[in-house]
Amino acid sequence: MNGNDILSRLADVIDSRKPAAGGDPATSYVAKLFHKGTDAILKKVGEEATEVVLAAKDGDAQKLVYEVADLWFHSMVALSAQGLRPEQVLAELARREGLSGLEEFAQRPHP
Amino acid sequence: MNGNDILSRLADVIDSRKPAAGGDPATSYVAKLFHKGTDAILKKVGEEATEVVLAAKDGDAQKLVYEVADLWFHSMVALSAQGLRPEQVLAELARREGLSGLEEFAQRPHP
Amino acid sequence: MNGNDILSRLADVIDSRKPAAGGDPATSYVAKLFHKGTDAILKKVGEEATEVVLAAKDGDAQKLVYEVADLWFHSMVALSAQGLRPEQVLAELARREGLSGLEEFAQRPHP
Amino acid sequence: MNGNDILSRLADVIDSRKPAAGGDPATSYVAKLFHKGTDAILKKVGEEATEVVLAAKDGDAQKLVYEVADLWFHSMVALSAQGLRPEQVLAELARREGLSGLEEFAQRPHP
Repeated sequence: MNGNDILSRLADVIDSRKPAAGGDPATSYVAKLFHKGTDAILKKVGEEATEVVLAAKDGDAQKLVYEVADLWFHSMVALSAQGLRPEQVLAELARREGLSGLEEFAQRPHP
Repeated sequence: MNGNDILSRLADVIDSRKPAAGGDPATSYVAKLFHKGTDAILKKVGEEATEVVLAAKDGDAQKLVYEVADLWFHSMVALSAQGLRPEQVLAELARREGLSGLEEFAQRPHP
Repeated sequence: MNGNDILSRLADVIDSRKPAAGGDPATSYVAKLFHKGTDAILKKVGEEATEVVLAAKDGDAQKLVYEVADLWFHSMVALSAQGLRPEQVLAELARREGLSGLEEFAQRPHP
Repeated sequence: MNGNDILSRLADVIDSRKPAAGGDPATSYVAKLFHKGTDAILKKVGEEATEVVLAAKDGDAQKLVYEVADLWFHSMVALSAQGLRPEQVLAELARREGLSGLEEFAQRPHP
């Protein structure tokens, strides 16, 4: 199973937890997040970003991997809430890479 | 090219921008980030997380995909700074999935 | 000059930088933020919060005071953008204190 | 009671919740935060910053005041954890104002 498969399968599971797909807030953490709504999902994105910062400052490699996984996971819930997929994020990253070997990304202005 | 390839190739490019690999802060955005140090990288992670929140609140699908790409990209720079790889994040997500079809993740306590 | 004066005077200055008050984006940082709009202001709030986290993790007292000042400052710009004042934040904090010596705040549920 | 009094009294209460001052994690929310440690406090700062962003995007004035109060409150817990006081933050804001009528702040470079 490659990375695409992992993210795609994970997205499938997340999508299956949406209210319209029959996700049950009583038994599923993701269904509960969808039930609470967009703000609850976005609070988690903000929270997990802070945890990534804390883990990185601690130089705790295992925790950093874990917190980045949490951050990406909740990003995917935010995507799913708007009918979007991680494949689109990968396509965006590939597009940047494809245009000019990622140099395009490196050279565009960053505030 | 599948998703794993995209993230792995992107990580290769990021790794090649590290000072020890000869990354040039004058020509590469990522090399510049590495040169500035951990705090500069982590500020970007926090900043991009906020941009994900703003795009999601606006219900702007295209912008949300773009901002999640930025967030994942800078997460990968933070990983690279500590010698870590996105494959480890995918493995962590797969581990959660593998154990019990992601139910494990859904059921562990989340603060 | 007491604390109320400082925050009130600072809020007066911020309010005077709003477009309707004649704030000039070419010469004033705050006028420029108002000109860019709500998202630009909120990005700064998120950014400064991350800088508070970084300074606190470093145990750098002087930097922490500085970054909290930046965070409060940009919070006040966000308030001003919606016609709100820091006195209302202080009143909210006093209200919590007044009711029951801040025990009320301590005991209400925090997620 | 002016703003300085409110922040100073609030800081006194927060300081009294520190373990060394006899704060009891079983009965006080702030004592519990101190007991959990720096990371728990900083997670709250990041979380409340996200809630400020969400409230501002909703244009919900009452909620925005409330969330800014929460953000400032947890900033003060972070200050207290390092033996710092809100009066130092106000002094920093006054210093910027005093030097050149806040123009100094407006004109220094902001990334």
